Amino acid sequence: MGTDSTWLLRLDSSGDGPRLAVKDCIDVAGTPTTAGSRAVAEDAVAAEFDAPVVDTARRQGARIVGKTNLVELCRRIHGLNAWTGTPVNPIDPERLPGGSSSGSAVAVARDEADVAYGTDTGGSVRVPAACCGIAGLKTTAGRIPTHGVYEFSRTLDTVGPLARDAAGLAVGMRLMEPGFSSAEPGEVPLTAARLRFPGVEPGIDDALDAALAAAGVRLTDVVIAEWEEWIAAANVIMSAEGYWAQRHLLDRADRLEADHTRLITEGGELSAAQVTQARRAGHAARERIGALLREHRFLALPTLREQPPRFGERTAMTYLTVPLNLAGLPAVSIPVARPDGGFPASLQMVGGWHEEELLLAAAAVVEGALG
Amino acid sequence: MGTDSTWLLRLDSSGDGPRLAVKDCIDVAGTPTTAGSRAVAEDAVAAEFDAPVVDTARRQGARIVGKTNLVELCRRIHGLNAWTGTPVNPIDPERLPGGSSSGSAVAVARDEADVAYGTDTGGSVRVPAACCGIAGLKTTAGRIPTHGVYEFSRTLDTVGPLARDAAGLAVGMRLMEPGFSSAEPGEVPLTAARLRFPGVEPGIDDALDAALAAAGVRLTDVVIAEWEEWIAAANVIMSAEGYWAQRHLLDRADRLEADHTRLITEGGELSAAQVTQARRAGHAARERIGALLREHRFLALPTLREQPPRFGERTAMTYLTVPLNLAGLPAVSIPVARPDGGFPASLQMVGGWHEEELLLAAAAVVEGALG
Repeated sequence: MGTDSTWLLRLDSSGDGPRLAVKDCIDVAGTPTTAGSRAVAEDAVAAEFDAPVVDTARRQGARIVGKTNLVELCRRIHGLNAWTGTPVNPIDPERLPGGSSSGSAVAVARDEADVAYGTDTGGSVRVPAACCGIAGLKTTAGRIPTHGVYEFSRTLDTVGPLARDAAGLAVGMRLMEPGFSSAEPGEVPLTAARLRFPGVEPGIDDALDAALAAAGVRLTDVVIAEWEEWIAAANVIMSAEGYWAQRHLLDRADRLEADHTRLITEGGELSAAQVTQARRAGHAARERIGALLREHRFLALPTLREQPPRFGERTAMTYLTVPLNLAGLPAVSIPVARPDGGFPASLQMVGGWHEEELLLAAAAVVEGALG
Repeated sequence: MGTDSTWLLRLDSSGDGPRLAVKDCIDVAGTPTTAGSRAVAEDAVAAEFDAPVVDTARRQGARIVGKTNLVELCRRIHGLNAWTGTPVNPIDPERLPGGSSSGSAVAVARDEADVAYGTDTGGSVRVPAACCGIAGLKTTAGRIPTHGVYEFSRTLDTVGPLARDAAGLAVGMRLMEPGFSSAEPGEVPLTAARLRFPGVEPGIDDALDAALAAAGVRLTDVVIAEWEEWIAAANVIMSAEGYWAQRHLLDRADRLEADHTRLITEGGELSAAQVTQARRAGHAARERIGALLREHRFLALPTLREQPPRFGERTAMTYLTVPLNLAGLPAVSIPVARPDGGFPASLQMVGGWHEEELLLAAAAVVEGALG
């Protein structure tokens, strides 16, 4: 079971704009950034500067309502945190909230924030959004500055917003990038490659297909044979980069969750040749999906293959998300009710690089069809 | 005139491998990393860890012979440093050594190191190599870890080797990536798009064309209309990222060269929309060059349009290098004697992403034809 630990720090910032919750791996001047880790927190001093994404929001009047809970070091997807506690899944308290941006997702789902900032290295915005029945956007790699963000995987880390819906995500984008606005719905070409995977619960696929059909999206089924190779490649990059970024914590192992000592150590055992091979797979993924996007305007797939796990259950929750980090693409997740009464499904839509404007408009069209 | 300031710190490391010089923006455990800046040096403590690229070299027996001089904060290309002095151009002491990896280039040119590590964000390995008559390799963005490297532009910074020739660069790559080896010369397709630009000294173009013809490289002339747009885009990204990485130095402005205060400050004045537009240009560059590389195996162009400037002269020394950083491509620079007796020209060859193995083999083929 979770605990009432959505927030690590409540702030009462002035401003007349949206209420903004900030994952506690992102610097807010004057507060320490803990990354959900006792080992980090014990040495942390108050950040000297707001991260650029916080600074930009504050200048636009956003009210920073607090720092949200997360998985230790942003390194896993379940949403659990033994040190800080685990935020409560607002739909079903028996299920995991998803991570690593667990508190950010719960804060939005409980309407304690209009927008929350999360970070997504392998799915850490989209998966908690899916687990908590809200929307989340993984941004194009490099588009949104990661300065002032506690580092896990230098080349895969991205910052992105969580909100109730696509309109809320556009507000979140605007807080990071003033002047951002979604495309007009009329400008959105309604064609997508519908990526198909084994192991997806039929109720999830059915709910997504019904929603896409209702929105008038023309679908072409596509199977990507290299998908699991891309998962492996992304995990190699994360593991190696996580070692380089976090190896200094190994001498504080008594203050890390035990898993982290193992995870960090394993990253140090990878060879440079393995990392280069993984980067080549990333290049191939980019080329392959680039070709697909020349043919179809978007990609559509679930965010999770199954309902969010209950405490103690284990599933591979980044299976459908992490290859898109490898390719650096933007991907939005929005909730889709299941006619069969199951836990709400989550539709993941993927746009071309730097096409967040178009992607959020497409998501809004599908939301509109959901009524 | 330069001063005898190639080295900021001499080390006498044990080992039986190649002599390795390390630019002083890269961590060597036990020594402070100064980034050639008094403002940085005054707060610097000894690095706790070797940067991964140093660690990997040391484990292979490389002898780390010292930390080399550089342009303050790696931010400019001329090679000058008012605080540390300016390394002497080994070919013509009246001319700039080029930067920012000035000391690394001079250390190799003077045979005080077999390989030197440099960093290349807009040309900072290739330009000093060209100015000092040696070879330099800008690596594929993301291939070689930048952890433990003083940050300037998070998404454009790369680490790469300088050496006497392509074989030496392969040694340098092996020090960063054990097991690296150049392709066999027989595997190298000898076709290239010969990029043509206005403002190149005829003696440089002639020397390059003669060398490429002697090597049997089949050339197709190509003009890229977007080149100057890409230069502008790369400069926007560097400027914005340089602000986020280095704004904390502004309160130490009395210990920075005056230009840096201005350069850092200007980066803070860019809008998020300008940066996103620049990133979109980067994506377009990648697509455009990707299409070119499907048609031609390599790109060939000069490294510098003119002979290296004399002290006091100003030229745009990153004109031919920085768009390749924007596109993330690997690019090797090798010296080519000028039959007209001018300062040695430098041929820049560009390969596909993560194709350093093939690119160094192609460079070796051209070197072979030079005799």
